[in-house]
Amino acid sequence: MTKPHRFLHTPIEPFVPEDGLTADRILERMGRISFQGRNLATALRIWHKMLESDATIFLGMAGALSAGGLRLIVAHLLGNRYVDCLVSTGANLYHDLHETRGQRHYAGSPHADDAALAEQHIDRVYDTYASEDEFIGNDNWIADFAVTLEHRPYTTREFLFQLGRHLWETTGRDGILTAAYRAQVPIFCPAIADSSIGMGLSQARQQAVDAGHIDIIGDIVESANLVIRRPSTASIVLGGGTPKNFINQASVQAEFYSPAVGGHRYALQIVTDVPHYGGASGSSLEEAQSWGKLAADSEKISVQADATIALPILASALVRTAPPLLARRTPPEFSLAAQLMTVDGQTVRHDRFEEAK
Amino acid sequence: MTKPHRFLHTPIEPFVPEDGLTADRILERMGRISFQGRNLATALRIWHKMLESDATIFLGMAGALSAGGLRLIVAHLLGNRYVDCLVSTGANLYHDLHETRGQRHYAGSPHADDAALAEQHIDRVYDTYASEDEFIGNDNWIADFAVTLEHRPYTTREFLFQLGRHLWETTGRDGILTAAYRAQVPIFCPAIADSSIGMGLSQARQQAVDAGHIDIIGDIVESANLVIRRPSTASIVLGGGTPKNFINQASVQAEFYSPAVGGHRYALQIVTDVPHYGGASGSSLEEAQSWGKLAADSEKISVQADATIALPILASALVRTAPPLLARRTPPEFSLAAQLMTVDGQTVRHDRFEEAK
Amino acid sequence: MTKPHRFLHTPIEPFVPEDGLTADRILERMGRISFQGRNLATALRIWHKMLESDATIFLGMAGALSAGGLRLIVAHLLGNRYVDCLVSTGANLYHDLHETRGQRHYAGSPHADDAALAEQHIDRVYDTYASEDEFIGNDNWIADFAVTLEHRPYTTREFLFQLGRHLWETTGRDGILTAAYRAQVPIFCPAIADSSIGMGLSQARQQAVDAGHIDIIGDIVESANLVIRRPSTASIVLGGGTPKNFINQASVQAEFYSPAVGGHRYALQIVTDVPHYGGASGSSLEEAQSWGKLAADSEKISVQADATIALPILASALVRTAPPLLARRTPPEFSLAAQLMTVDGQTVRHDRFEEAK
Amino acid sequence: MTKPHRFLHTPIEPFVPEDGLTADRILERMGRISFQGRNLATALRIWHKMLESDATIFLGMAGALSAGGLRLIVAHLLGNRYVDCLVSTGANLYHDLHETRGQRHYAGSPHADDAALAEQHIDRVYDTYASEDEFIGNDNWIADFAVTLEHRPYTTREFLFQLGRHLWETTGRDGILTAAYRAQVPIFCPAIADSSIGMGLSQARQQAVDAGHIDIIGDIVESANLVIRRPSTASIVLGGGTPKNFINQASVQAEFYSPAVGGHRYALQIVTDVPHYGGASGSSLEEAQSWGKLAADSEKISVQADATIALPILASALVRTAPPLLARRTPPEFSLAAQLMTVDGQTVRHDRFEEAK
Repeated sequence: MTKPHRFLHTPIEPFVPEDGLTADRILERMGRISFQGRNLATALRIWHKMLESDATIFLGMAGALSAGGLRLIVAHLLGNRYVDCLVSTGANLYHDLHETRGQRHYAGSPHADDAALAEQHIDRVYDTYASEDEFIGNDNWIADFAVTLEHRPYTTREFLFQLGRHLWETTGRDGILTAAYRAQVPIFCPAIADSSIGMGLSQARQQAVDAGHIDIIGDIVESANLVIRRPSTASIVLGGGTPKNFINQASVQAEFYSPAVGGHRYALQIVTDVPHYGGASGSSLEEAQSWGKLAADSEKISVQADATIALPILASALVRTAPPLLARRTPPEFSLAAQLMTVDGQTVRHDRFEEAK
Repeated sequence: MTKPHRFLHTPIEPFVPEDGLTADRILERMGRISFQGRNLATALRIWHKMLESDATIFLGMAGALSAGGLRLIVAHLLGNRYVDCLVSTGANLYHDLHETRGQRHYAGSPHADDAALAEQHIDRVYDTYASEDEFIGNDNWIADFAVTLEHRPYTTREFLFQLGRHLWETTGRDGILTAAYRAQVPIFCPAIADSSIGMGLSQARQQAVDAGHIDIIGDIVESANLVIRRPSTASIVLGGGTPKNFINQASVQAEFYSPAVGGHRYALQIVTDVPHYGGASGSSLEEAQSWGKLAADSEKISVQADATIALPILASALVRTAPPLLARRTPPEFSLAAQLMTVDGQTVRHDRFEEAK
Repeated sequence: MTKPHRFLHTPIEPFVPEDGLTADRILERMGRISFQGRNLATALRIWHKMLESDATIFLGMAGALSAGGLRLIVAHLLGNRYVDCLVSTGANLYHDLHETRGQRHYAGSPHADDAALAEQHIDRVYDTYASEDEFIGNDNWIADFAVTLEHRPYTTREFLFQLGRHLWETTGRDGILTAAYRAQVPIFCPAIADSSIGMGLSQARQQAVDAGHIDIIGDIVESANLVIRRPSTASIVLGGGTPKNFINQASVQAEFYSPAVGGHRYALQIVTDVPHYGGASGSSLEEAQSWGKLAADSEKISVQADATIALPILASALVRTAPPLLARRTPPEFSLAAQLMTVDGQTVRHDRFEEAK
Repeated sequence: MTKPHRFLHTPIEPFVPEDGLTADRILERMGRISFQGRNLATALRIWHKMLESDATIFLGMAGALSAGGLRLIVAHLLGNRYVDCLVSTGANLYHDLHETRGQRHYAGSPHADDAALAEQHIDRVYDTYASEDEFIGNDNWIADFAVTLEHRPYTTREFLFQLGRHLWETTGRDGILTAAYRAQVPIFCPAIADSSIGMGLSQARQQAVDAGHIDIIGDIVESANLVIRRPSTASIVLGGGTPKNFINQASVQAEFYSPAVGGHRYALQIVTDVPHYGGASGSSLEEAQSWGKLAADSEKISVQADATIALPILASALVRTAPPLLARRTPPEFSLAAQLMTVDGQTVRHDRFEEAK
């Protein structure tokens, strides 16, 4: 009898509970079991590889992660350059700003009486509450800030850097926007018009008819130029949405102008959507390879899990295991204060794609 | 013994299969059963109520519905004013344009070899294929068109109307963009930067450095002004995503400037996401009431189903039952050809919210 | 330029809504679109093929389908031999019995106050209610019946046939149990102990200590012998659960004793669970091939949809299109009244597997 | 301005990543965030309360958890009396037996070529493989054992205890069945007929026509009598399925005979199914209250997560935090070797419900 080595080579090692395990050691053991536990362990391993490589690491963030309590993890990841560029929904940046401004979200119930909440001016996000009056205050605060900017189109990258600066200067508090500002990490927000930050910008026009202009197409050019400049990239996606596609699109668009670009070398997504309805949020990383969004030989893993479980575990493991890798890596260096950003000291245009020879 | 009438008043009527039932009669019977079947039947009933009321009906559309074969249903809904305004992802408009230009999507397999597809320049959306070379042709076609426009910011509403016109004039074919153009139905695309239409716009800059400008914040103002002008609204959402929130945001933003606005009177969503991860796509319509996105007494239904099953059934029922309602309704009349749109003959601004007295 | 025929051969035909379409014609059009709509259309096509073949068709049924209003569809499928054998959860048979006894389920709300319902003795199944007092009446009715049977072990197949007979004789009403009795279609209920029918049986012991004996292992033998006798089989599964695996297990167990058995020739499942958590309900039909549950060349389709939407559509189409196929087929003929059932006139044992030469 | 204390009392505390956090401290921080992360933290807190109370704790287990690497966690929970009674699917016990007999499951790929696997006699469970030939060996081993038992009906509780004993005596290895045997913890398997253990039992009849008899109805009586004897109960459910309902049914059935029973005092479920399709696996714990399965004032939490992520985290936290609680509790003491089990020294019948005065 011959053992069918082709398939049966790596035995499952049942997880043995043990006192004192830190997150990294829990994930180490999860890596030998099955299903999403194994995938979550693989996610840590692939993140390590990203940090060991020369890849520019994009982080996408959709879903109510800031309201839900993950904003300081993201701030930590930006501030310590576990990632190099954030692509976010507007809501996540807005809820971050809300807390950085000293306000809170509150633990609530998914079974709340929404009519009663509405009467009390309380907005619900599943099991989490916030004060609508404070939200209105934020909108006005954003509008008041936006109107002080030059009355010309800003990419979201430039605008959000300035917003982070203003937020840091007025609060001195840690958060996503302020950490990105301080670490000079670019943030793109392709769907800014679909968020309360967009609403704040729109209200700036009430004060000045030519205020609140965003050059969303400039963001496409700028993000693709980043990839053209540093064609080795990695994608980490939390929750899908517009950030997932925008990160992939940057790679596809860059390849149009530069053959050196060949799709992300590494990809990791933590999603709750599923592939079989055809939507982009749940689409598989295999499918992404057909589009050239991912390199054919990319290392990749998809974890089906709520980020409020997966990310605290992953981050707890990373803060233990990644520091030596962080110390050794040379991430892209950005300067973001001007209309034209620079990467590694070179200007990056937002009005014209760089064409590789 | 007293019958507990409070709860046990409406018996489930088991569905009896019968030869010759059309979609409306199938839904009629589904309305007496349980779970999502009942909800789908309720969706038809609520759509009828929308058409019987004076509400302006917004349709949101996310997920790969155009590639997946639903674009001519949406075109029919726009062309015959089952709805009054479309909010879409860029991808759905792009895949519509792809087919209106005479190209096709193709039936494929979700288990395809994506490396082989990539080699053949074929892009996969779950079980559906398209030619990447044809997509590149579309991008160029959009870029070539965009560069012919005035070099000033366009709202997506204005740009997409012009794109629909150009598409109609060059193809004469039915589709979402062309039907909207012909019926003068506005389309908003808040996340246009996260799509191949955005990519086409960005490529216009390669031809003219100041081409391809989109005033995404203007869309916020314009859509809210529509609601201020006609405060009775209804929301139909397919798949969640940015369109879902953008439609709700228009209502919330409008209420900020006009107390007559009080949230959508009717709401219907067909989604596959779930509420318990906190994301907006899956969020419940009850939650939306806490925000004032929906009126406290709104009629609403959420159907958990793939739109490729639910919409063909609903549309087949509507084309049978809705024509008398359509004949009686007086929907908003738009003119969309200029930088400033009009509704019912009155100009709607995109650079300043109207303030109700 | 050569057209890449290998992949791009079958264009998606956008669904065109049209007045007067019956379910079969809606599915015909859905067969040319994508995602679950296409899969539902394929399900009809494969069911047709099952009926055209000589396969014995097993139907599995899990989830609250009887309470939810689908029991008369299932009764119709059994009574007219669209299927040849039912494997069900106990709950579906119990809720069927509840209604056949003249009682009802009621339309309710998923947001009900469950404490208030509990006080009123109302049991909730998502959006559907039933009277707990009536349920207690059913349990007693089952116990009273069970105690009249011989005090020896009954397979669920034999017991459920006798239960169906008793139900028919006392009510004369249509339903799953009574239709199966009248059409002599066997029903297996592998998890009968996990249901109110099991509870009724257990209560029979209060009247006679040796009443209520079920020979659940006999069901395994009998069902496998059915497959050995007629090795061409097909599997239709609604909702997964124990019926899904029991139908597959019959095939696997049969193959152990007879090499002529080679897995189901056709398989169709309508499920809402997903594969990626490793559970059997959501497991893919591809996975089933590795086990030999399905033949390597089987025709198969998995539809991700709620059965309360999918089954009414499918059944409405079948009653229109299948009658000629039903007229031509020669399904297995069972007699079920005795401890030993027969198929096609030959006895089938429940205490010993038949061994093929 | 008055603060709306009614709703906004408990601020979300963003998770701060920190080096060296063990699972209990990670969960402590997760308890202050939102969504499923918060729920998982609540699950730990409720498990603590179960251990502090006098409740008999039932653990239900469905899904491929043993094959997937969680069997030694479950063994640990049984052996150290974190729980008092296991209700399992047959597959989980079978895959446990497979490994306890010295065989393995193997890490595989969800994208495997199932035809190739079938040829190699390899069975796939999502991303996990096992040898079909070894499985056939297990079936025979079970059949050979079953035929040595008395030829009379066994409850699954009695049979599985004897199987655990035989397994321990022949292997001396840790696992679910052997740990339950050694700790005298009862195991019920209501759907044993739907599993390879059932298949092994059925094969015993090939050796002796009256072997392999299971008294599945006796399990209902015995489990309800356990609840009547000790009416304070708690339910922990992994994955739903038949174990979830069987545990609830025991409570409902017990209440029929004893008014002191009033539903579980505590309930915790970790599931991936959702409520809105009406199936029992995904049904909410609120719904369970309408049936009286849960006490109106029960403490309860539902976590939407894959058990391969959630259980290793929970178990790692429990082994650190629960030992003092375990030391203080006086769990029920069972003896299980005979046809009649005892609890706390008193016989428990399986052929008649105890009636409380």
